[in-house]
Amino acid sequence: MKIQLALDRMDIAEAIELTRKVEDSIDWIEVGTSLIKEFGIASIKEMKQAFPNKQILADIKTIDNARYEFELCFEAGADVATVMGVSPLVTIDICMEVANRYHKKVMIDLLNTSDEQKRELRKYKDAIFCEHVSKDQQEESGSQNHGTGQGVFSGFQVAAAGGINLDSIEDLAKSLNPAVVIIGSAITKAVNPSEAAAKFKQLILQTEGIKAC
Amino acid sequence: MKIQLALDRMDIAEAIELTRKVEDSIDWIEVGTSLIKEFGIASIKEMKQAFPNKQILADIKTIDNARYEFELCFEAGADVATVMGVSPLVTIDICMEVANRYHKKVMIDLLNTSDEQKRELRKYKDAIFCEHVSKDQQEESGSQNHGTGQGVFSGFQVAAAGGINLDSIEDLAKSLNPAVVIIGSAITKAVNPSEAAAKFKQLILQTEGIKAC
Repeated sequence: MKIQLALDRMDIAEAIELTRKVEDSIDWIEVGTSLIKEFGIASIKEMKQAFPNKQILADIKTIDNARYEFELCFEAGADVATVMGVSPLVTIDICMEVANRYHKKVMIDLLNTSDEQKRELRKYKDAIFCEHVSKDQQEESGSQNHGTGQGVFSGFQVAAAGGINLDSIEDLAKSLNPAVVIIGSAITKAVNPSEAAAKFKQLILQTEGIKAC
Repeated sequence: MKIQLALDRMDIAEAIELTRKVEDSIDWIEVGTSLIKEFGIASIKEMKQAFPNKQILADIKTIDNARYEFELCFEAGADVATVMGVSPLVTIDICMEVANRYHKKVMIDLLNTSDEQKRELRKYKDAIFCEHVSKDQQEESGSQNHGTGQGVFSGFQVAAAGGINLDSIEDLAKSLNPAVVIIGSAITKAVNPSEAAAKFKQLILQTEGIKAC
């Protein structure tokens, strides 16, 4: 299980400074949607330059203009870019085609997708599927239910995002068994981000150790 | 019927230069999603500074993190900002609340919304509803069918976007009767953008003249 650090609602310098503190404990770096929309593609380029050996995910949340947006991300150094599962399928087709051409990956964000849309999305076998409880949904209801996606996405690479913390990660690992857990404020807003990230890593190693037994 | 000039797939300096050529014929300026994602919120700020007397629409395509994104847009000088109709309703609620607080407007982009979602969206009586044939859908099929939205959105402010040109605008005016027509490449890629924009304005004035008779 990889840890993806989600960086949002901060500037690029803060994102770099924060990532420096936790880089030993995390695997992927997410350049959050707010960084991209606030500071542009420079946010992806600067994060890749600062952390050339980390996987950089650009949370660009494409829903149209897929070729242009995905080429921008990959040219800027992203290794993975996101497209919304609620997009027209032609948009996701283009994301897959661009990612294949660059030898990069697509993450499909399942936010607000219907069951029918989820079934249709199963044709993208090389994608990573992200069960996503949005920031706005969390703030409304405190909900952190990521579903059990494995019903629809059994055998696929699955990621989970939204309000994951040290208390919820064990249950999440059992129910959804994601390949990637996306953690934002539980690290970035921690009093000691380095310590928080190390605890997540330790918990994940323990969980995986138990499974391997 | 207002003309909204959509600026996409160019840099901010090009966007300003192009808008200068056509400003007499257009009403609203759309800072396109690609400008925002490529250059950040600076794209909105610079367009408002260059054209302080025009309505600036930020096509931010919010689908989460609504308060943060909408406040960014309005603080940067946008008069209207967009949210996706496929978002969780809580996200659209927040967009409406922020827009009311700033005395600004929300445009709800109907891209890929189901009939059921469209019916649910009717509760946002102060929003502008945008019938949107996406760039990717146009490039796939050449489709420019904006529907007749008036069935569901009769009595609402409606906008139409996607592949609108001098040949299609009259039919569109008759079938959908939008308050706002969003025109991109038919002006921005024209050999003579100023002439193209003037023709759109003339056609719209004629259509409105016929209706008024």
